[in-house]
Formats: sequence, structure tokens, C-alpha cells
Amino acid sequence: MILAPERMAPLEPLRIGIDTRQELIIYLHADCPVCRSEGFSALSRVLVSSNGQHIIATLNIVTGDLVSSGQIGLSEPAWKRLALKPDAHIRVSHPAPVQSLSYVRAKVFGHALDQQQLQSIIEDIVDGRYADVHVAAFITACGADNLSLQEITALTRAMIQAGDTLDWELPMVIDKHCVGGLPGNRTSPIVVSILTACGLTVPKTSSRAITSPAGTADTMEVLTNVCLNRGQMKDIVTRVGGCLAWGGSVRLSPADDLLIQVERALDIDSEGQLVASVLSKKIAAGATHVLIDIPVGPSAKVRSRASADKLADTFRQVAAELGLSIRLLCTDGSQPIGCGIGPALEALDVLAVLQSKPEAPLDLRNRACLVAGAMLEMADVTAPGLGEAMAREKLESGEAWDKFQAICMAQGGLKRPPVAPYRYNLTARDAGIVSAIDNRLLSKIAKLAGAPVDPAAGVHIPVKLGDRIEPNEILLSIHAESSGELNYAVGYLEQHINVVQLQPLSEPGP
Amino acid sequence: MILAPERMAPLEPLRIGIDTRQELIIYLHADCPVCRSEGFSALSRVLVSSNGQHIIATLNIVTGDLVSSGQIGLSEPAWKRLALKPDAHIRVSHPAPVQSLSYVRAKVFGHALDQQQLQSIIEDIVDGRYADVHVAAFITACGADNLSLQEITALTRAMIQAGDTLDWELPMVIDKHCVGGLPGNRTSPIVVSILTACGLTVPKTSSRAITSPAGTADTMEVLTNVCLNRGQMKDIVTRVGGCLAWGGSVRLSPADDLLIQVERALDIDSEGQLVASVLSKKIAAGATHVLIDIPVGPSAKVRSRASADKLADTFRQVAAELGLSIRLLCTDGSQPIGCGIGPALEALDVLAVLQSKPEAPLDLRNRACLVAGAMLEMADVTAPGLGEAMAREKLESGEAWDKFQAICMAQGGLKRPPVAPYRYNLTARDAGIVSAIDNRLLSKIAKLAGAPVDPAAGVHIPVKLGDRIEPNEILLSIHAESSGELNYAVGYLEQHINVVQLQPLSEPGP
Repeated sequence: MILAPERMAPLEPLRIGIDTRQELIIYLHADCPVCRSEGFSALSRVLVSSNGQHIIATLNIVTGDLVSSGQIGLSEPAWKRLALKPDAHIRVSHPAPVQSLSYVRAKVFGHALDQQQLQSIIEDIVDGRYADVHVAAFITACGADNLSLQEITALTRAMIQAGDTLDWELPMVIDKHCVGGLPGNRTSPIVVSILTACGLTVPKTSSRAITSPAGTADTMEVLTNVCLNRGQMKDIVTRVGGCLAWGGSVRLSPADDLLIQVERALDIDSEGQLVASVLSKKIAAGATHVLIDIPVGPSAKVRSRASADKLADTFRQVAAELGLSIRLLCTDGSQPIGCGIGPALEALDVLAVLQSKPEAPLDLRNRACLVAGAMLEMADVTAPGLGEAMAREKLESGEAWDKFQAICMAQGGLKRPPVAPYRYNLTARDAGIVSAIDNRLLSKIAKLAGAPVDPAAGVHIPVKLGDRIEPNEILLSIHAESSGELNYAVGYLEQHINVVQLQPLSEPGP
Repeated sequence: MILAPERMAPLEPLRIGIDTRQELIIYLHADCPVCRSEGFSALSRVLVSSNGQHIIATLNIVTGDLVSSGQIGLSEPAWKRLALKPDAHIRVSHPAPVQSLSYVRAKVFGHALDQQQLQSIIEDIVDGRYADVHVAAFITACGADNLSLQEITALTRAMIQAGDTLDWELPMVIDKHCVGGLPGNRTSPIVVSILTACGLTVPKTSSRAITSPAGTADTMEVLTNVCLNRGQMKDIVTRVGGCLAWGGSVRLSPADDLLIQVERALDIDSEGQLVASVLSKKIAAGATHVLIDIPVGPSAKVRSRASADKLADTFRQVAAELGLSIRLLCTDGSQPIGCGIGPALEALDVLAVLQSKPEAPLDLRNRACLVAGAMLEMADVTAPGLGEAMAREKLESGEAWDKFQAICMAQGGLKRPPVAPYRYNLTARDAGIVSAIDNRLLSKIAKLAGAPVDPAAGVHIPVKLGDRIEPNEILLSIHAESSGELNYAVGYLEQHINVVQLQPLSEPGP
């Protein structure tokens, strides 16, 4: 029930500039009358109302002078959601119970959830009616293999419907996704250029980095403008056949972004949530055909072929339910792709491949052609088995490079990637053969160096597994925009020198 | 791993007086160098170090001027845990992964947890290494009937060992607990007086209200001093045979208090957690014999006889594992016990029963004698079937009242309960028979009136189920210490007038 808060004097809003991510938090003084009359205490869930607008927020009690007893402090997300006028008056009372939480409880008790129940859970999460602990309970209840195929499908539908969707009014919109964990695997800009050069329409929306040193949107941003609205995207795609935009400017599957925050904190794997997360984003973006790249390797996200197959199978079945054409590609995730890790360094690899420069990293070129080839075959542009060759030809002929430039020009011009002023080179003491490269440590070092916030920062790693290394040869270079960040990354590297492992030449190789 | 934060300049601590309950939260400015070098963002878990002291806290990013880029703001729990000196310097870095979280994940995947695993989970929770979302995941994973008897027993042991324990060096220490949900059911002070009058040693520690309008400690506090340390308790118990102290002054099963905060927010029932919570508190308090009172009724915590039996069964088996003598008593929870709801109003009922006043509420007297009788039989003070009569006799003879006064004198003197200046009477419009009383609504009204913070506030309800009511007869009175709180409770009552339901005389009774 909602109490009539009119009995209480209204509170004066105060924007205190605290970013509490998705959780809406308000700050009331311990002496605030409403705390006593409502029996509110720290962590109470409260209904915050301001002329017609309502949010449910979590209460923090202030004992200092941050707010007075007549004021209400609002965290940034709470402030933005209420969209307050400067002279707004706020009333605080007890919220009505959130009905969908009873479905979360039902799931905890092992009951299956139907479309409507998952729908209202996702809607309540998107509307901010869940505290982080409630989201955590939902994720935990759906963790492990606790979701059936029917539930994963229903969850995916619910996540799509809770946000915006793009409709390209085209018979086929093809897209790709890589199940993360592989540094430098920046094939999308190359793949989009190849596919559009083959006459396909590829309206690509990408995300920024969440836990990695760079997302495709971060990399593209050093080359051109990626913040496009629907109208601009539509116009560009109609003119040049494709785009490489940031998905964040449209609200595609917003629940996913909220769930990911808490999933990261909990680190509870859930195949069902992963599949729903990926497919909801792609379908909301208007894709009809999707290729999923699953890199498999000891330090990649998916570590064994068996779990890759299991994951692929779930993707296939759910996609079929949703009428999405899908193809799964298990790729080698044993080492980074390309030499650059970080927005600008990855952009330089992309440009080198598109321009067929001699120094272009061969593995990135090959991976891009492999992926593009599979997608060309999916799209029936060419017969099975001929896709990869067709992709290579589009690169060699320069048609892909032309398309890429056309896309960047349409998005606002092609920029030169920034270069980092600070460097540190890790060199080999003795000769040897590269026997192992740790993807996770590389990503970590690139992030400590400042990526993706500092676009020029990151790691350049010119060596590959099996390479023969001479003494004093460079194994990797750290790039940074400030000496402090360089020192910090170097300090971490010194503690984790095994990021690149060499097999002495004397010993026999493995 | 823990990074060497010495590379960064230390931060100046700032106590900003925000009560975030058990979750340790720190506030850093978005421009703080460590945020960029460590790649910290809102909700990151961070290691906060100050000369030898460490805590793991959750990060909130500040965009306003709450803290400068050289400062670190600490919430009240974080500030207290670090016990900072005024000129302390603070460094922030990445925490080592919390090992026991992998056990929580294992539980999510359906694996049973052993003693050592539950031990380290509980220790980490007590040491503040879990964010609320982690605690929520643990509670959810253990929700429903997901804990085996072995796990509940191990969890109880772990919760006991994570805190202090009291040892009375006595062959028998008898205690009682009521599985909440019944307003006014304040039998403990009467039961303790009866038992000590029968020569038993009863060192009673009670809790304050968590969600109810009054806990035994709140009620006793209007009559005497309840904040006793171990030494005082021991001295008093040796001299007069018993005490009625607040358990909070000793750290009994601290994990329980932390779990309860999040359990309340999630409202996920877990029989296992309930049993571990109650038994860990009692065993830590040094009890060897415990009686559990389970009120059963439509608006009580336990709503059916069947679920009461199931719960009782779990209590019995776990208690047996832990070598605790236990007796379960299922009692009538269909209406409040006594007339008073709220610290002072309940204290007046208690005094009336102990003094055998004519206006003493008969149901409270009977319930106290029922419970005390069962405990006398448990303790072999009297033969089975004779306990209740013996309890009545101790009340009638005035020996229980003498003991109660002796205990209060020993604890610092017997005080007169305060009286609320503001009243509102709900009267019956027409004649009728009382057909239903809603416990939850009564508790809610008493809390809105100010209980337990305002000791004199609460509800006085003189009527019982089946009573014949005449027009204009008082059904209940709201007591408050301020007119604002009185109005607030009245406003709520007007919206929930069905708190007391009357059957018109014309119609036949149910």
C-alpha cells in the first residue's frame, strides 16, 4: 500500500553527486521526521514521490551534516530518474510490495517461471524497482543450469521487450558477436567492410568495453564518430550499406546492462543468462542472421571444447525458438589476435589489415576472413566453402578498405589514431621459443596502463606462440598517456613476468 | 593478488557520516588517480589499507564536491572498522579474491557444503569481506529447503564460533525463544521470575525489536537497566538466580545480525537459516536447555499446524546433533497476547500479571504459566503435567513478583513505565462479536505511532476474539509521544479499519 505522505512536510531535494550505478539510493538525516514516523532505517526501501513522478529507492541514514533533517539527498541515478525541477518538493513513504519478487522466490523454491513472470521481473528491474540484493537473488536463482530452454527463451523475449528495438525493414540483417575473453580480437570493423563490399547490409551496433581493455565501439571511436541516433544510422546504412555505431545511443536490452553489473560482482556463471544476454541484444538491434564466435583457450572465457559445444547447443536451440538464423564458430583462443591491445593500438592493426600493409598482423587478417567467410556463406552470397576466399579477395582488391573509408566518412570523417607518449619495452634476456601467453594478464596490464579510458594506452605484443626469440628481442611494449600509469602497469608486469613464457632453446620443446 | 599501492600518493580520510548498515562503502572522486590507474568504477570492490589495518569495501564514485580527488570518504561502518587515527593516511588497491565466494558458487551449482566451507563463508561475512549482493547470493543459494540437516548443523556451529560465547559453569542453563510474529507476547520477564522463584538459574539475554514494535530488551528497559557486561551478569545471576539483560552488549552469533538485514530485504524464507539463527544465539548464550514457542495463526509468522510441525522437527534434529535439550511448544497465534503492544504498554501488562492485579490480562498470565510449566518439567523441577500448576502457584504466592523486583534492583532499580501524552480511541459504531484481529496491522500501527523508539508509544487493545462489543465501546487505543506520530498512525488505521473485525449480532456467528 502507499501511505498518504501529505501528513508529513515535504523534503527539499539535494543532488549530492554520488554514482551508485543502477541502484537508486537516497540519503535522509537520522533526525528526519519521516524516518521516525515511517519507522525507516538504513537500507529500508522507500517510495520517493515528486509531482507525479515516483521511484523506489534504498535509504542510507546520514548522521553527519551531509543533509539536514528537512532535506533528501539523491544519488546520481535517483536524481536523473526523478528528473527534478530546481524547486521540486519531495515526499517519502512506504512503497507497495514489488509483486515480481514473489516470482524470484518461486524460482528459489525450484518452480519454473513463465513468459509473463519473467516479463514482470525484467520490467521491474529496468524500472529500478529492484535493489541490487534483489537482482543478486534473481541471478543466483537462475545461476548454474537452473533455467530450462523454455525459460531462457522467455527471458530473452522479456529482455528484448523491455527496451527499444531497431527495425531495418530489410529481409536480412546480418550481425556477429564474440563471446569475449580474447584481447585484440577486433575483427568487426574488417568483417563489416568485407560484407558491405560484397553488397550486404550490415548495420553494426557495438558496445564499449565492460571488463576488457577495449570494445569495438572504443576502437572505432579513435577512427570516427560512433555516437549515431536511429535516423543517422538509417541514413548512413541506406547510403553506404553499413555502419559501425555505438549501441549505447539506443536503448537495446537495457536489462542486460543492469544484470551484468551484479553478475560481475557475483561472478556466478549462468549459461542461460549469457545466451539471453547476447541474443536479446542482437535481436533488439534488428539482426535476422547472427554468427557467434566462441574463442576456446586455457585463458579465454570458454576453456574447453566440451563447454564450447554445450554453449553452442544452447545458443542454437534458443535462436531456433526465436526464429533467428544462427551459426556458431569455435575459434582458437590460445593467444591474442593481432599485436595491439587497447583502442588506438587495435585500430592501427585494423587499418593495416584493411590497407593490406606488409606489417599487418596475419592472424587478425585470417580470423577476420574466417568470420566474414562464414557470414557470406550464411547469407548465401557464396556457396559453402568459398566464403573465406571471397573475403580475402575483397581485402586484396582494396574494396573492403574503400568501404571502410566510405563508412567512416559518412559517420563524420576518418581520424588518425592517437599515439601514446610513454613506452616501456619488455625484452627477452635469453633466446627461446614462445610457449605460452596469458590473455588475462595482458588485458589487466593494458587496463592498468589506462585503456580504454586513455585511447592511446594499452599493450603491443609482436610475438606469437612458437616464435623463436633472440636475446634482447622485444616481447611486449606497454603504452601509456601518463608516467604514473606507465609505472603502475610496469609494477604489475614485474610481479607477473610470466605473461609471456619462453622455452629455453637447450631443452626440447613440448 | 594485492598490488603494491605505494606507487600512488596516499589519500586523506574523510568521515562523511553515512550509515550503510553492514556494507562497508567508500567514496572516491571520479578524478581520483587511483580510480584510473586501478581501473576502478562504481561498485568495484577495493582493498582499503591504513597502517596495518585492512578492509574490503564497495566503491561509490563521487562526481560532486563531497570529496576531493585526494580524499577518501568512508561510511560509518567502514570508518569504525578501520578505527582511523585523525592524521591517518589511506591507500586503496585491488583486494585478493575472497576464496569462500567459490563455495557460495558451488552451492548455487547444487553441491553440499561442509563444516570448513560454511565456516569460512560465515567468517568472511563477519569480517566484512562480503558485499550485500554476496550475502544475498548466499541466502538465496541456501533458501527454500536447499540445506540438508548436516548443513544446517554445520551452519549453526559456524555461526556460534564466529562470535563470543557465554559459559555459566552450571550443569543446566535454561532459556526460551518465541518464533516471532505475535504482538504483545511478552512472557519472558514473567517466565524468568517464575523459574528463578522455583530455584532455577536463568541468565536470560534478549534482543531488541528488529521488525516488531518491541523486543523483550526494549520492554525490560522501561523497567530497569538492561545493558550489563559479562561480569555484571555473572554477579547478578549468582546473587539472585537470574537476569533479564540485553544480548547486544555481548557479541553472540554476530553473523546472524548481518544475515537478518539482507534476509529482511529479500524476504526469502529458509527454514535452515531460521533454525541456525535461533539455535546459534541460544547456544552462544550458554543455554543447555531451550524451549521454542511457535505461535500458529493466520496472521502469525507460522500460519499452519503442518508447517509448525515441519519446523519443529528440524529444530529437534539439529538440536540433538548439537547436544542441546530442546522442547517445542505450538501455541495459539490467532490474536495478540495481553492488551499492550509497545515497550511501556507491554511492561504494564507484565507488572499487572506479576502483581496478580484484577485487571491483569488473563491470556498473558495463562501463556506465561504454560511456557514456564513446560520449562519446569524440562528441568525436572516437577513431574510431567504438574508444571503449569506450579507456575500459577508461584505467581499467586507473590514469590515470582518478589524475584522480579530482586532482579530489577540488582540490575539498577525498578523504574515506573512512561505514559504517552497523546491518545486516539477506535470505538465500535454498532454492537457485535469480535471475529478477527490482524496481528500484522496491529504491529504496523504501533510502529507508526513510534514504538519501539518512543517507549510509551504503541497500541492498547482490550478486546479478544469472541468478545461481545457494545456500541461506542473502545476496540483499541493508539498511544503516541507526539501529535505528528499519532496523526500518522491514525491515518493508517483509517485506511485499514478491518484491523479488528466485528460480526453483527443479527447474523449468526461463524
